[in-house]
Amino acid sequence: MRIVIVGGVAAGMSAASRAKRLSPDAEIVVFERGEIISYGACGLPYVLGGAVEDWDDLVARTPDQMRARGIGVRLRHEVTGVDARARTVTVQDRDAGRVTQEPYDRLLVATGVSALRPDWARTDLAGVHVLRDIPDGQAIERSMQGAKRVCIVGAGYIGLELAENLCRQGLSVVLLEKGPDVAGRTLDPEYRRRVREEVERHGVDVRCGVSVGGLTGKNGRVTGLQTSDGLVRADTVIVAVGVRPNVELLRAAGARIGQTGAAAVNARQETNVEGVYAAGDNCQSVHRVTRRRVHIPLGLTANRMGRVAGVNMAGSDATFPGVVGTGIFKVYGLGVARTGLTQTDADELGLDAVSVDVKSTDHAGYYADARPIHVRLTGERGSGRLLGAQLIGENHLSVKRVDVIAAHLHGRGKVHDLFEMDLAYAPPFSGVWDVLLVAADRLSRELKGGRVEAPAKKAAPAVG
Amino acid sequence: MRIVIVGGVAAGMSAASRAKRLSPDAEIVVFERGEIISYGACGLPYVLGGAVEDWDDLVARTPDQMRARGIGVRLRHEVTGVDARARTVTVQDRDAGRVTQEPYDRLLVATGVSALRPDWARTDLAGVHVLRDIPDGQAIERSMQGAKRVCIVGAGYIGLELAENLCRQGLSVVLLEKGPDVAGRTLDPEYRRRVREEVERHGVDVRCGVSVGGLTGKNGRVTGLQTSDGLVRADTVIVAVGVRPNVELLRAAGARIGQTGAAAVNARQETNVEGVYAAGDNCQSVHRVTRRRVHIPLGLTANRMGRVAGVNMAGSDATFPGVVGTGIFKVYGLGVARTGLTQTDADELGLDAVSVDVKSTDHAGYYADARPIHVRLTGERGSGRLLGAQLIGENHLSVKRVDVIAAHLHGRGKVHDLFEMDLAYAPPFSGVWDVLLVAADRLSRELKGGRVEAPAKKAAPAVG
Repeated sequence: MRIVIVGGVAAGMSAASRAKRLSPDAEIVVFERGEIISYGACGLPYVLGGAVEDWDDLVARTPDQMRARGIGVRLRHEVTGVDARARTVTVQDRDAGRVTQEPYDRLLVATGVSALRPDWARTDLAGVHVLRDIPDGQAIERSMQGAKRVCIVGAGYIGLELAENLCRQGLSVVLLEKGPDVAGRTLDPEYRRRVREEVERHGVDVRCGVSVGGLTGKNGRVTGLQTSDGLVRADTVIVAVGVRPNVELLRAAGARIGQTGAAAVNARQETNVEGVYAAGDNCQSVHRVTRRRVHIPLGLTANRMGRVAGVNMAGSDATFPGVVGTGIFKVYGLGVARTGLTQTDADELGLDAVSVDVKSTDHAGYYADARPIHVRLTGERGSGRLLGAQLIGENHLSVKRVDVIAAHLHGRGKVHDLFEMDLAYAPPFSGVWDVLLVAADRLSRELKGGRVEAPAKKAAPAVG
Repeated sequence: MRIVIVGGVAAGMSAASRAKRLSPDAEIVVFERGEIISYGACGLPYVLGGAVEDWDDLVARTPDQMRARGIGVRLRHEVTGVDARARTVTVQDRDAGRVTQEPYDRLLVATGVSALRPDWARTDLAGVHVLRDIPDGQAIERSMQGAKRVCIVGAGYIGLELAENLCRQGLSVVLLEKGPDVAGRTLDPEYRRRVREEVERHGVDVRCGVSVGGLTGKNGRVTGLQTSDGLVRADTVIVAVGVRPNVELLRAAGARIGQTGAAAVNARQETNVEGVYAAGDNCQSVHRVTRRRVHIPLGLTANRMGRVAGVNMAGSDATFPGVVGTGIFKVYGLGVARTGLTQTDADELGLDAVSVDVKSTDHAGYYADARPIHVRLTGERGSGRLLGAQLIGENHLSVKRVDVIAAHLHGRGKVHDLFEMDLAYAPPFSGVWDVLLVAADRLSRELKGGRVEAPAKKAAPAVG
């Protein structure tokens, strides 16, 4: 059996490894358009900021390591076409220029996403970048030498992480965002505001509601952006306005593309085309809370999809369980996490949702190191079901407790059940009632319309 | 209606607050033998170590604050008897010496636990202490002035926390333990060893398998301990060998005491005696994993039981959901957490249990601040059910993710479902596959006996 994989990053290499382990006799060939496989794209901003020492540190496995495990890797080979009936792909060797037809029994298209480049960003001017892969990062690094003023366009996760990391390197940073606030749709307005304050407090010049019309340049290098807010001077511009799934190959093969614009696959990561799988950032998945198809390209999802595809291509059986919309990021001193639905999400879906906001600390309140943590918990009236949570913590690791909510959403749990959980307590870790329990208690009562107990102004004294 | 509460700490004051809120017209009287109510006993070691500034910081509510809310508080009043038929309690005013009969409609016995004092520790020598309440702590503090060498007997949570906190104050600390290792039965041997290494590394003289036979003294002050390991010199001795539930009052009232030695109550915190409730450290509860009765006196449990009792005494309805055996502590740089069953626990219960050990980091491995985190996950063959977890992390907050396991145990979840969860990932928080997911994957395959996939020597490359 010959398994061909297009794309050698998260999903592709997870699939290759898993398929090889389960089916050691299968021939597995990975075609990667670029020069590097198996790297951690989520770490890119942190190399620029210095928290990761070197680009190489992001690489989990080299082509030689994969080859030693019996997995063929062809770098700088681009797959340009699929003939699903003949079960062949057209491959172009980007160096030699040679084009060949390669047969497959099973094909995985793990082509990921590309960074969106608006028309104004399609330019020959030097100093204009996106950040999707290591070469992009290296180009930004080169651009930073001698740079003074960077403008990041787009204040999503990547834009925010970049703002912090470039600011840490002593650059003056302007963060432009077309929408009304930072962090896009991932958080409710109150929580977005807190994130914005944090980046502003550290000297990032954040400007929201600003759209870019064009670039200015001099001697072949960018000098600024023409925006709805006037000219913004910058010697380096990073475009972080979003991504689009790379589905051209799938579409040409006759695979169905979903309404999200990403590939439509079943839980086995199979497309509608016999023998053709898709996995990773180019795929949509099922949201377990809404049961709708969503496109949320994130690292764990890509790895998991790749793994599922690898198991299935090897003839075993695995299914992708769906997502609950968990996301987390750090920006300066803040940890920010969310999972499930925000109140905004729930309102848009027409759900009868209620949220409560609770503030607590990541240590007992009386403990010297206690830092604030804020939680918004959202639930559904009637069903009593938990819908989602947003967390902001001043000790960033404290918001990893979002995973408790993700776990509970996974099983479509109720708010009241969350309140009943035996969560860990000692003074260096939380209040006696963990902030999640306090929030679940309040929300549970709110959902009952205060029937059994009136919501308290202040929490009951809890001592421990 | 008159509600009488015996004991004014965690369970008692939670009950009083809740009952008053739900039933504002009820007369609520709390009899507290000591002089302080509503304090966080779990914080006691941290006042001695300096992480909590003052003893007063541990007090959540003063008697005056409670009285302002319409809750009667009588300090230094000891309840010495119950006439359950007449519905009265005998109360002794410890200052005036006066004894009165006080009527009740509903009675809550929230008398907590007492520190065990072996025969050798019943002494008139100065410098010998236990640590259960603020006066105990203040006595230790006074004893520490001029002290040089402290011996802590008992290496459970409190003994370990004390060792660290006293060592931080510059005292020479010997930690004696009768059992084979520190942290008692809460952890499997491998994990106990790691905890022991950590305290030893910081200069605590840990001696396990050592029993104490008596004390030596001079001029009315302790000078040492006679032990199976010879004489141990010490100018201060703290006895932390465990606790026993204060159930005398309940027993006298005809309430049933469970096999654990703690009060037997139903889920509404009712004893078998009409109108008599019990809540807090003196009660046993149901372990949701084993369905057995256990006595695990901890802060959250006490607060929750008190709350449940308060709701029910006020005429509403609440039930205590049981526990899953979650515990957490910090010792020097380590966070240590456990929930559910250890492998040792499971073996003793005759379960067909398997454990896997996984090491990962609390940030992506390539991140500068990445610190190790170790997880042992235990599951049951056949059922595939998750049984428990033990975590040790070098960034202490990282082990709070034990709550994900506690949440899953709450619903008697399976190991494989844990693996499918959409847990949060970004480089400053975990590896792409959170250590809990890696462990769930390994354990899931182990439970299947490697049927579908052979357990990997090394994790598949995961990049993000």
